[in-house]
Amino acid sequence: MSLLVVGSVAYDAIETPFGKVERTLGGAATYSSVAASHFTKVHLVGVVGEDFAADDEAVLTSRRIDIEGLERAAGKSFFWSGRYNENFNERTTLVTDLNVFAEFRPKLPAHYRNAPYIFLANIDPTLQRAVLKQMRRKPKLVTLDTMNYWIERTPDELRETLRHTDVLMINDAETRQLSNEHNLLRAARHIANLGPTTLVIKRGEYGAMMVHGGQAFCVPAFPLEEVHDPTGAGDSFAGGFMGYLAGRKHASTADLKRAMVYGSVMGSFAVEEFGLDRLRRVTRREIDARARHFARLTQFTL
Amino acid sequence: MSLLVVGSVAYDAIETPFGKVERTLGGAATYSSVAASHFTKVHLVGVVGEDFAADDEAVLTSRRIDIEGLERAAGKSFFWSGRYNENFNERTTLVTDLNVFAEFRPKLPAHYRNAPYIFLANIDPTLQRAVLKQMRRKPKLVTLDTMNYWIERTPDELRETLRHTDVLMINDAETRQLSNEHNLLRAARHIANLGPTTLVIKRGEYGAMMVHGGQAFCVPAFPLEEVHDPTGAGDSFAGGFMGYLAGRKHASTADLKRAMVYGSVMGSFAVEEFGLDRLRRVTRREIDARARHFARLTQFTL
Repeated sequence: MSLLVVGSVAYDAIETPFGKVERTLGGAATYSSVAASHFTKVHLVGVVGEDFAADDEAVLTSRRIDIEGLERAAGKSFFWSGRYNENFNERTTLVTDLNVFAEFRPKLPAHYRNAPYIFLANIDPTLQRAVLKQMRRKPKLVTLDTMNYWIERTPDELRETLRHTDVLMINDAETRQLSNEHNLLRAARHIANLGPTTLVIKRGEYGAMMVHGGQAFCVPAFPLEEVHDPTGAGDSFAGGFMGYLAGRKHASTADLKRAMVYGSVMGSFAVEEFGLDRLRRVTRREIDARARHFARLTQFTL
Repeated sequence: MSLLVVGSVAYDAIETPFGKVERTLGGAATYSSVAASHFTKVHLVGVVGEDFAADDEAVLTSRRIDIEGLERAAGKSFFWSGRYNENFNERTTLVTDLNVFAEFRPKLPAHYRNAPYIFLANIDPTLQRAVLKQMRRKPKLVTLDTMNYWIERTPDELRETLRHTDVLMINDAETRQLSNEHNLLRAARHIANLGPTTLVIKRGEYGAMMVHGGQAFCVPAFPLEEVHDPTGAGDSFAGGFMGYLAGRKHASTADLKRAMVYGSVMGSFAVEEFGLDRLRRVTRREIDARARHFARLTQFTL
């Protein structure tokens, strides 16, 4: 089944201890779409400027991502620049130029409006809600990302949007902030009362934890000897998670657990090279091999 | 098979958001011995002062821990006092009175000297080495804990002791400091060259990672709705890990993985109540039930 992805498409300048790129395709919707495209058909909604290059469009279309919903606006594309320290545990944002993204109003082409799976990457919750309003029928599964900015500035709009969300996918600091609870199990119970029956907590180098039906499920981050660029890891996780579920056409507890594994697998590929370099070229065979490797990393018999 | 545990036996004063205890039995060797005693026969080596109470001795003997090697010296027992902040992510040490522990020289009773499994809790590496020299034959498995103090102050003595160590069990900061490598897989390779063929990295609320034979294995911390006192969690993990292995009489890769699970299970019981309150009363039935619960938390089918 197809997956609708809505969010930022950007150009990134990235500096890590392994090198530097001046301008590479990025953005939350881009990472999650490319990750998901290995599992299912993706319909992308976003906005780019007049500077959006044919080569970058080809990155998306070569992954068979439907970009009819990728609007071209007068002006420049969203530009972000950041630098990671030696151990990748600190990121300094150098530049955030929203450009055309500041006026982004998601418009869904007609054939997007039946998509059963939706990933709403981190944007204004009012816009996330506007996407859901354009759907012709109730989606099977809506997953939403958000951040401290919206939790603090637009709590009412976020709460309204959460009422229509099945899976909330945020990091631990955001979980604690939204629920006002330090303990993650109690935070999940608080959040379930806001709407999302599933909470996926992203914990960076420590992996991710899902709380679904009162039960927790944990996956580690896949240990790598070399991380070259952590940009987009969380969005690639989201893309792997949602892409896997959309491809399965089911979302049983066992499916959700496997989706956590494929999310972690796609996050691990994303960070191996700069920008989308690894994620766009990885093969399904490599993905499945890493999922099996992931099993050796976590599975035991009592 | 029996397990020899060597390390600190102390009195702790602990303050957490859930309450306060003025004086409770603690120390690394105590927590690890009590945790291990649920799986195997434990021989304890440590030192206490004249203030060591009959009730506290009974805590150990009621778990059938052999305390012939628990020396009584003139003076007071090791005393530690600490306070945890609201979210348990910061601990302030208020008092560290080494007392009789400052002159601790481990002496093994004759019947301890054939113990096939040894856990050397965090003490001076020269003393850890002195324990190994007293063994009549090469143990099956030696696990060692250490800390930044010894890594910085006595690096040569630590290296000499590591040559006779099978499993090094430390936290991530210590792993990075000892290996001078931020990446944990590369750090494990560095440490394998020092002697320990297995590295267990304790990561607090994020669980633990083992690297053995070039392969990683991860366990999460068991999610609890209420943590009352994190004191001794890492030592209880070590006790569960070593106790399980000693009880199994094997240390295959599958056994080591299960030992990681039982380590995490015992760590989770330790933090549910103050001091040893939960750990000493938990039943084998409860331990096994939590291990099965742990499987639901981590196991998936591809």
